[in-house]
Amino acid sequence: MTDAKVATRSRENTRARLMEAAFEVFAEVGLDAASVEAVCERAGFTRGAFYSNFDSKDELFLQLAARVASDRVEAVQARIDSLVADRSEAFDESQISEILEQVLDVGADDRLGVLLMSEIRIRALRDPDVARAFLDQDAAMQRSVAKIITDIGALKGIEFRVDAEQAARLMLIVWESSAVRALIRGVADESLEGEKALRAAASARLNEVARLILC
Amino acid sequence: MTDAKVATRSRENTRARLMEAAFEVFAEVGLDAASVEAVCERAGFTRGAFYSNFDSKDELFLQLAARVASDRVEAVQARIDSLVADRSEAFDESQISEILEQVLDVGADDRLGVLLMSEIRIRALRDPDVARAFLDQDAAMQRSVAKIITDIGALKGIEFRVDAEQAARLMLIVWESSAVRALIRGVADESLEGEKALRAAASARLNEVARLILC
Repeated sequence: MTDAKVATRSRENTRARLMEAAFEVFAEVGLDAASVEAVCERAGFTRGAFYSNFDSKDELFLQLAARVASDRVEAVQARIDSLVADRSEAFDESQISEILEQVLDVGADDRLGVLLMSEIRIRALRDPDVARAFLDQDAAMQRSVAKIITDIGALKGIEFRVDAEQAARLMLIVWESSAVRALIRGVADESLEGEKALRAAASARLNEVARLILC
Repeated sequence: MTDAKVATRSRENTRARLMEAAFEVFAEVGLDAASVEAVCERAGFTRGAFYSNFDSKDELFLQLAARVASDRVEAVQARIDSLVADRSEAFDESQISEILEQVLDVGADDRLGVLLMSEIRIRALRDPDVARAFLDQDAAMQRSVAKIITDIGALKGIEFRVDAEQAARLMLIVWESSAVRALIRGVADESLEGEKALRAAASARLNEVARLILC
């Protein structure tokens, strides 16, 4: 490897470690309370390393939001592809909600993910850049889920009572809302076993919606 | 009036003005960034007046959340009562969603209300006291909306495809999610005419759900 390549790789590692640390610190204490110092300490870097990679805490936050969004959309796409490839299975409503559940689960299957998405949402209510990033991600997720619903319908000859976009929007907000509420119940109980409850609650709610949208 | 009564009334006025000011400051800059100083300045009081009424910023915040919740539930109840009293009207699906819309609109019909509820939600993800307050309000709202749906069904002989509680939960999260997204679109466009768009978006989404839950 050339020196330039080594330098590039080391720079990428630094950025990746800073973003990973920021993800944890933001999700734990919220964006306002998360300091550049805390992020650097968690990542094991100096403030100098931080500012040679990011202009500000807000810039890091936006890049993090974009990365979470694109990871999520990519993973959804991969699942759609494998779903479309598998033409053998017969579907019923519980399988449809199970598939959607798996798809929606991507990128938000843990406490940190849900906290970060909530942080992005509240930030989007105040900051135009974050608002645009939020809406882009929202639209991309909705398109992906609508495509799954359309594909399932076409492949399996299933009819729905609403169009794929409406169904996707409903699925996404039901998932988001039940994930957040399950976490809040964990916080209220001061129990830490939030993730299982999170998935069980989201699963029950998605089943209800799947029943509603089927003819 | 006795001196004691005058003192009590003046104390109530101080509390009310501090809570009003806190509502505005919290909603504008978020809880973390809102300082006791900023709240006092907005209300025209000293820090002394603040601390003779509230132990901390968090205590004020919880009282504010409780007040918003109880105002909302009371207003919903009043609308249910007047709805039940009016037995003459014939209902169709657009009227049902219109009624629900009016009910859900209470206490969150403006930008500040939606921002405050979002702030409570994210705070509930971290703080057990706020989490319990959030869940109490959520359950109370759900019971109120479920009661409306049951009352409409019984009065007008309408059948629904899901039980009243499921329908209420769906209505509430659809309303919350569309109100938040309409506001975020306003922020992204840097337009300030968010409230009309907010209501139009929520109205369209509620209509979709009303269609889905009707047999």
